[in-house]
Amino acid sequence: MTVTSRADCVELDDRDPLAAVRTRFELSPDLIYLDGNSLGPLPSGTAARMTEVIQAQWGQDLIRSWNDAGWFDKPLTVGDRLAPLVGAGPGEVVVCDSTSVNLFKAFTAALELRPGRSVVISETRIFPTDLYMLQGAMEFLGGYRRELIGEGVSLEDLLSDEVAVVVLSHVDYVTGRVHDMRAVTELIHRHGALVIWDLCHSVGALPIALNDCEVDFAVGCTYKYLNGGPGAPAFVFVSRQHQPDAVQPLSGWHGHAAPFAFDADYQPAAGVARFRVGTPLVLSYVPLEVSLDLWDQIDLSEVRTKNQRLTDLFIDLVERDCADLGLQLASPRSAAERGSQVALRHEASYQVVQALIARGVIGDFRAPDVMRFGFPATYVKYADVWDAVQILRDVLITGQWRDARFAVRSTVT
Amino acid sequence: MTVTSRADCVELDDRDPLAAVRTRFELSPDLIYLDGNSLGPLPSGTAARMTEVIQAQWGQDLIRSWNDAGWFDKPLTVGDRLAPLVGAGPGEVVVCDSTSVNLFKAFTAALELRPGRSVVISETRIFPTDLYMLQGAMEFLGGYRRELIGEGVSLEDLLSDEVAVVVLSHVDYVTGRVHDMRAVTELIHRHGALVIWDLCHSVGALPIALNDCEVDFAVGCTYKYLNGGPGAPAFVFVSRQHQPDAVQPLSGWHGHAAPFAFDADYQPAAGVARFRVGTPLVLSYVPLEVSLDLWDQIDLSEVRTKNQRLTDLFIDLVERDCADLGLQLASPRSAAERGSQVALRHEASYQVVQALIARGVIGDFRAPDVMRFGFPATYVKYADVWDAVQILRDVLITGQWRDARFAVRSTVT
Repeated sequence: MTVTSRADCVELDDRDPLAAVRTRFELSPDLIYLDGNSLGPLPSGTAARMTEVIQAQWGQDLIRSWNDAGWFDKPLTVGDRLAPLVGAGPGEVVVCDSTSVNLFKAFTAALELRPGRSVVISETRIFPTDLYMLQGAMEFLGGYRRELIGEGVSLEDLLSDEVAVVVLSHVDYVTGRVHDMRAVTELIHRHGALVIWDLCHSVGALPIALNDCEVDFAVGCTYKYLNGGPGAPAFVFVSRQHQPDAVQPLSGWHGHAAPFAFDADYQPAAGVARFRVGTPLVLSYVPLEVSLDLWDQIDLSEVRTKNQRLTDLFIDLVERDCADLGLQLASPRSAAERGSQVALRHEASYQVVQALIARGVIGDFRAPDVMRFGFPATYVKYADVWDAVQILRDVLITGQWRDARFAVRSTVT
Repeated sequence: MTVTSRADCVELDDRDPLAAVRTRFELSPDLIYLDGNSLGPLPSGTAARMTEVIQAQWGQDLIRSWNDAGWFDKPLTVGDRLAPLVGAGPGEVVVCDSTSVNLFKAFTAALELRPGRSVVISETRIFPTDLYMLQGAMEFLGGYRRELIGEGVSLEDLLSDEVAVVVLSHVDYVTGRVHDMRAVTELIHRHGALVIWDLCHSVGALPIALNDCEVDFAVGCTYKYLNGGPGAPAFVFVSRQHQPDAVQPLSGWHGHAAPFAFDADYQPAAGVARFRVGTPLVLSYVPLEVSLDLWDQIDLSEVRTKNQRLTDLFIDLVERDCADLGLQLASPRSAAERGSQVALRHEASYQVVQALIARGVIGDFRAPDVMRFGFPATYVKYADVWDAVQILRDVLITGQWRDARFAVRSTVT
C-alpha cells in the first residue's frame, strides 16, 4: 500500500506479523529508538534471568556451576544456538571474546591456510577496527601487503593469485550497503583466496547463508540486531572444511583438546572449540540467551521483508517531507542493496542528531557528516517511521539544531 | 594462640578484624567453601546492582549509557580502582578480556621491547594457559626459543643476555608457592630481560607492590580472590615507563588514540589504553565493581595475616588429625612461602575431593593427584578450618571416598 497518512502506518502496524515480538522488549513508549543497529534494546525478562543466574548458579552452586550449569561450554552451546541465524551448522560457531579479537583469530588462521600468498584485501569503508586488527596481525607477522577496495578500485581490480585473504563487511556500517555474499565469495574463491565476512551489521537483519555460500570464516557481534546486551560476547564462524587445519595464535586453555589435563604443550581441540581462548565471561551470555529464546520464534525472512518496507518508507517520507532541507541520502536507494539502516548526510549532522535525541528520536552520528538510523523489524513500528520523519522535518525547518547545546561533543560520539 | 579445640577457633573468629567482611557475602551456612581460589563467592547486593544497570542503563538509557554511564571507559576506570590492590598507579591497569588474551598482549609487547634477544623463560609449574599463549605467539612470530624452570633447572641457570622475557606465576596455582617478586624481578633485570608476573593466584590474597618492585608487566584475573563473578574480565598492568613504546598486535579500535575519528590507520592511544582491544563486555564489570566497593574497605595486610594463620592452622590440624591417612603436603610448610591455599596429595585425590563436596566441604582436584583448598581471609572462618579437617579425617578413616559415585569424572574436573 502507498502510505499517505499516519493512519496508514498504524494500519500497517496492526497487520504486522512481527507485532507480537515488539511487546517482548522493554522500550519506553516515549522513545523512537532508531539505534538498534548500534545497541539493541532490552528483551523482557532479562533482569529476572540474570538475578536467577547470579543467586542460584553463582551464589549457591558456586564452582559446581562450571559443570552443572554448563558454564564451561557456553561459547559452544550458545554458538550452536546462534548458528541458524547465519546459515551455519552445529559445531561451526563459537561465541566468545570481542569481534576484534575474533577477527584476529580468523584472519591469522586464514593466512596460515594460504601459505606463499602475501596480499590481503579489505575495503576502505569497513568498520575501522577490522583494518586495525589486520594491521596489527600483519605487522606482527611481517611479509604481507594490504590492498583496499575503495573509490575507483574494485575487488576485481585487486584479486590475483597472490591474494591470501579478503575481509569484507556484509553490510556497510555507515551506508547500509549489502554485498552479494554468494557472488563475491565465489569470485574470491576463483582466485584461490579465502574470505572472512564481518556480519556485525547484517546478523539479525537479513537471512545469511554462510554454508550455502561456501564462506570460509565470519565474525560478528551480538549486541546490535541480536539484542544480546551491551558488549555481549561476539562470535566467530569457521567452516567445517577448514577446522582441521585452522590454527590461530591465541591458543588458550579453553581451546585445548584436554583443558583439564594441564599438559605443558598446546594441542588444539577438534573442531571450532580451538577458536576459544580463555575463561568465558559467563554473566555476559545470560542476556544473549534470553534474546535467543526470542529469536527461536522469529522468521528472518519476515524480518527482512519488514525492514525493507520500513527503510523504503523512511526514505520515501524524507524525500517527500524534507525535500530542500539540506539532506542527502547516503544509502542505496534500492531496498535490496541496503541492510536495515538508512544514512543521511547534512552539513550539521552531529547537531541534528543531538536535536533529534532531545525530541525522543534516537539515531546516531558517524564522522564526518552522517546521521544513521536503524530500523530493526523486531520492534520499530511503521508509525515510528512516520513520527521520526515529522520530527526530523520540524528540527530542520525550525532550525532547532542550531541551539548551542547540540554542538557540545561528548567523549563517545 | 595454640588451637586445641573448636571453641578456640570460634574465639579466633570472634576476634577476627575481618569478621564483618564475611557478612557481606551470600554464602550458605551449610557450606565450607574452600574454593574461592578458583571462583570467589557472591558479594551481597550484586543482583540488585545488576538489575539496576540492566533496567536503567540498558533498558531506559540505551545507547546513551556508553557516555552517560561511563560504559566506554569501564576498562580504564575499573582498572584504576583495581590498581591499589597490586601496587600500581592510576593509568597503569586496564580491565578487559581474559587473562590469556592479556598475557598475549603483554608478552608480544615485551618481546618487541627487547629486539635481538631470542630466549623466553617460563616455568613448568605455571598455569598451562600461560605456556600455551607463549607457544602460540612464538610459533607465529618465529625465531624464539623457550626455556623452562623446573626440576633441577633454576632461573639463574637459564638467565643470559639472550633472554628477552621471563613469565612467572607469583603464586603457584597448585602448591601455592610464592615467588619473591622483588628479588626475582631484580635478578631478571640484571640480565636486561623483562618480567611478566601472572597474579591470578595472588591478587586479593597478599599485598603486591608492582611499582615498588619495578615490575614491567603483569596480568591476572578478578574472579578468584577478588570475587568479581564467573569469568569476570581480567586485567593487564603496563608499567608507566614502558607505555610509550609498548605495542601489541591486538590493535582494536578501543585502543586507538581517537576511536571515533574512524581513521583508516591505527594510532595507539597514549598510556595503558592501547592495551584495550574491542568493545568491553559491560555487564561483566558490574559484579566486579560491587566487589571493589568491598575491597575499598579491606586492609590487605590483615588479609595476609589471617590467611597465613588459616593455612597454618589447616596444615597443623591435618598433621595432627590425619597423620598416617595417606596424605602428603604439596605446599610449602612455611606460611611466608605460601599463598592463601594448601595442596595435599593422596592416591585417590579425585575421589576424596568428591566425597568432601558431598559432605559440604568444597575444594577442588588438580591432575594428577592433588586436592586444593583455598582460604580467602575475607570469608573463611577458623571454625571452617576445624570442621573441614574433621570431615576430611572422617572421609579418609571411614573410606567414604571409595563409594563408586565419587569415581565418576565430570567434564570439567
